[in-house]
Amino acid sequence: MQKHIVIIGGGPSGVTAAITARRYYPESDITLIRVEEKAIVPCGIPYIFGTLESAEKNLIPDKILDTNNIKLVIDQAESINREEKSIKTSAGKNFNYDKLILAIGSTPLVPPIQGIEMENVFAVRKDLDYLKDLSKKLEKSKDVVIIGGGFIGLEFADEFMKRGNLNVTIVELLPHCLLLACDEEICKKVEAKLKEHGVNILGGKKAKTIKGNGKVESVELDGEEKIKADTVILGIGVKPNIKLATDCGLAADEKEGIQVDDFMRTSDPDIFAIGDCAKKRCYLSGMPKGVWLASMGTTEARIGGANLFNVRRRSECAIGIFSTCFGDLAVGSAGLTESAAKEMGMEVVTGESSAADKHPGSLPGAQELGIKLVFEKDTGLLIGGQVYGGVSVGEKANFIGALIQHKMRADEVCTFQMGTHPLLTASPIAYQLINAAQLATVKLRKAK
Amino acid sequence: MQKHIVIIGGGPSGVTAAITARRYYPESDITLIRVEEKAIVPCGIPYIFGTLESAEKNLIPDKILDTNNIKLVIDQAESINREEKSIKTSAGKNFNYDKLILAIGSTPLVPPIQGIEMENVFAVRKDLDYLKDLSKKLEKSKDVVIIGGGFIGLEFADEFMKRGNLNVTIVELLPHCLLLACDEEICKKVEAKLKEHGVNILGGKKAKTIKGNGKVESVELDGEEKIKADTVILGIGVKPNIKLATDCGLAADEKEGIQVDDFMRTSDPDIFAIGDCAKKRCYLSGMPKGVWLASMGTTEARIGGANLFNVRRRSECAIGIFSTCFGDLAVGSAGLTESAAKEMGMEVVTGESSAADKHPGSLPGAQELGIKLVFEKDTGLLIGGQVYGGVSVGEKANFIGALIQHKMRADEVCTFQMGTHPLLTASPIAYQLINAAQLATVKLRKAK
Repeated sequence: MQKHIVIIGGGPSGVTAAITARRYYPESDITLIRVEEKAIVPCGIPYIFGTLESAEKNLIPDKILDTNNIKLVIDQAESINREEKSIKTSAGKNFNYDKLILAIGSTPLVPPIQGIEMENVFAVRKDLDYLKDLSKKLEKSKDVVIIGGGFIGLEFADEFMKRGNLNVTIVELLPHCLLLACDEEICKKVEAKLKEHGVNILGGKKAKTIKGNGKVESVELDGEEKIKADTVILGIGVKPNIKLATDCGLAADEKEGIQVDDFMRTSDPDIFAIGDCAKKRCYLSGMPKGVWLASMGTTEARIGGANLFNVRRRSECAIGIFSTCFGDLAVGSAGLTESAAKEMGMEVVTGESSAADKHPGSLPGAQELGIKLVFEKDTGLLIGGQVYGGVSVGEKANFIGALIQHKMRADEVCTFQMGTHPLLTASPIAYQLINAAQLATVKLRKAK
Repeated sequence: MQKHIVIIGGGPSGVTAAITARRYYPESDITLIRVEEKAIVPCGIPYIFGTLESAEKNLIPDKILDTNNIKLVIDQAESINREEKSIKTSAGKNFNYDKLILAIGSTPLVPPIQGIEMENVFAVRKDLDYLKDLSKKLEKSKDVVIIGGGFIGLEFADEFMKRGNLNVTIVELLPHCLLLACDEEICKKVEAKLKEHGVNILGGKKAKTIKGNGKVESVELDGEEKIKADTVILGIGVKPNIKLATDCGLAADEKEGIQVDDFMRTSDPDIFAIGDCAKKRCYLSGMPKGVWLASMGTTEARIGGANLFNVRRRSECAIGIFSTCFGDLAVGSAGLTESAAKEMGMEVVTGESSAADKHPGSLPGAQELGIKLVFEKDTGLLIGGQVYGGVSVGEKANFIGALIQHKMRADEVCTFQMGTHPLLTASPIAYQLINAAQLATVKLRKAK
């Protein structure tokens, strides 16, 4: 008898889960239910307002569902009946499932700031019409305040500058932007680049009140500072969507998401949860970790989608791998920063190395690429790494992530074979990843 | 008593060995003897004739030796006295050593073609004056024939085109260029790009005779074809320099190089050999493998340099990781190609995946990045990978090399965590490395 697989949610995690399920269960019937008429590329949202110039250029093509013989239903899943193994939708339809995957995402956090409900205050919602409205509002704006200096906040700021008509100010609670992903010295490099692009950055400041007359006019900070604003963007994070799960009795935590095991199964073994809605634990500490990223979600999707009727893959928990780019400066991070590791009580040793990303450095277009590696002192295990430089930084961060996931020690990284090329990498003498590990190895030796 | 370490050879391997030795043996006295007044960046040589515009821009800075307190001696090592543990030089000097590292490199192969001794026939020698002479000759040239369509040959061809005054023809014995590093479909992409740049490529052809009147005038191929040429470049490979080693009774093979163990020791445990002069075995087959690359040499240098007085690191043999770049097309390769594996009698399964290297693909500057992974059928172990696309290809090939070195299976690669970013990588749904592994996994399952 043909098996029915239903996926609720059409973001990257839902789509990847559907495709993975198709690969492992070719005979099954697969339905993807999503509420949005068109699905947004979530990490592409900031680029709608600058580089891309339009929200329609930032869509996940439905063709990929078609190609993989996945039925797309545009509808809202309202409730799950676990006894009958069925889903009821807003349009009054019923869908039966043998296995169900929840990929229902997250919702932007809205901080309890006075005046937050005012017109022209926007959260980063994955909703085409909402984003188009923001686009329109920006056309008539002059002063924008972004509350939150994480990746999304910075990317919005940098893209807004490309419009030419906006003064942009970032208000960040921590002393520096990006501090949850990078150590201070790297955060400062990013801040310098954004300032060079004209962005104002206020670190260590808290937005207290949004003032205006129905429509926002200014943002008041702790300490009475007041910033003119006709548009405010909230970029302070997200919370997992869990209502659909808790309504049918699945275990979930409001802050952390739907409870899942290492196989991406919820407390009901016929229901899986993946992506932003699913609880994540830190690969390195086992503690809850909020890695709400499409990349993390699709990894979970590849695990959950393969495990539906047959356990194949085990999640190794979240390492946390990020990258971003501002003009000619890209930065990436994988695993723990030095400061996060120390806060957790770990003893660490670091190795830093930087060199031109072409060789000889006299080649046109050569720029500095730097790597910082963080190792646990007792074991010499790699627990984190950060990179800054040109466009190869994204793949470099992924490379470091793979080394963490595969439990490499400093001395093993030192003897990695690599290819080098004048136009593509540092010189083999100065190759940053290996030299950073080499420097750490010597420090680890001395520490013994 | 202070120990004396001597390194003979000032290329990337020699320099890296000296720096590594300094890190592990900080109290020792380290001397590097090299014959060249100035040391050339070997992989940068083709770029002297186009992008860099001058040989002087392609030097390894001596400062790095100074910084690491390494004595530089410009002289020719003539003989080694293993009993006395000393080296005699052309200038009549003697250097004592406790440990000696040979990093004496390789010499371009000169094929037994009639007329090869004529004026304006150049091999790719790492010699500043020789390369300057070639530069001068090119100014008065119109037609250049390059014999050999490997990496170096193609890079010369592409750089020569940038001069604007040259007709360039590559003559390659195999049906396609680059066939020793890449499978045919990737070789064809590279050939198409070079042809787009105006290079003539003659595959499956053998240069038989060089004709001229003292100075080269044409190259005659097997089958009577004749190509006009006022300059000829030989890019058919190298042979290891072994004379200094064999003269003092060290074991060596003329084609493969000085015999070394997994710790980079020669048959005399006080003498190490690294880089082009040292024999290499294939990581995947254990057979001799000619990976004469600076990157490979520096890996060996990091092993040998650390092991001098204290065994610390073991070589894992040569995977062979290459990358190169022609205009907007970069290609990279690690490990075995599909065809090489099959020739060795292995049964393999491949996975191919390509997607835009930014997401959404509508972002300006997005270009296709494709990955092919090769797995051994019985074990599912990754044995090779090839990449084509933009500048991140170099690091991507290194990433694949690391996965091979750490014995990853297809199913493990599928659940790698990665970060993705609109401006830096493919979308998480389409992430090529993981999707290529996923496709192979499904094939491997079916094969069982």
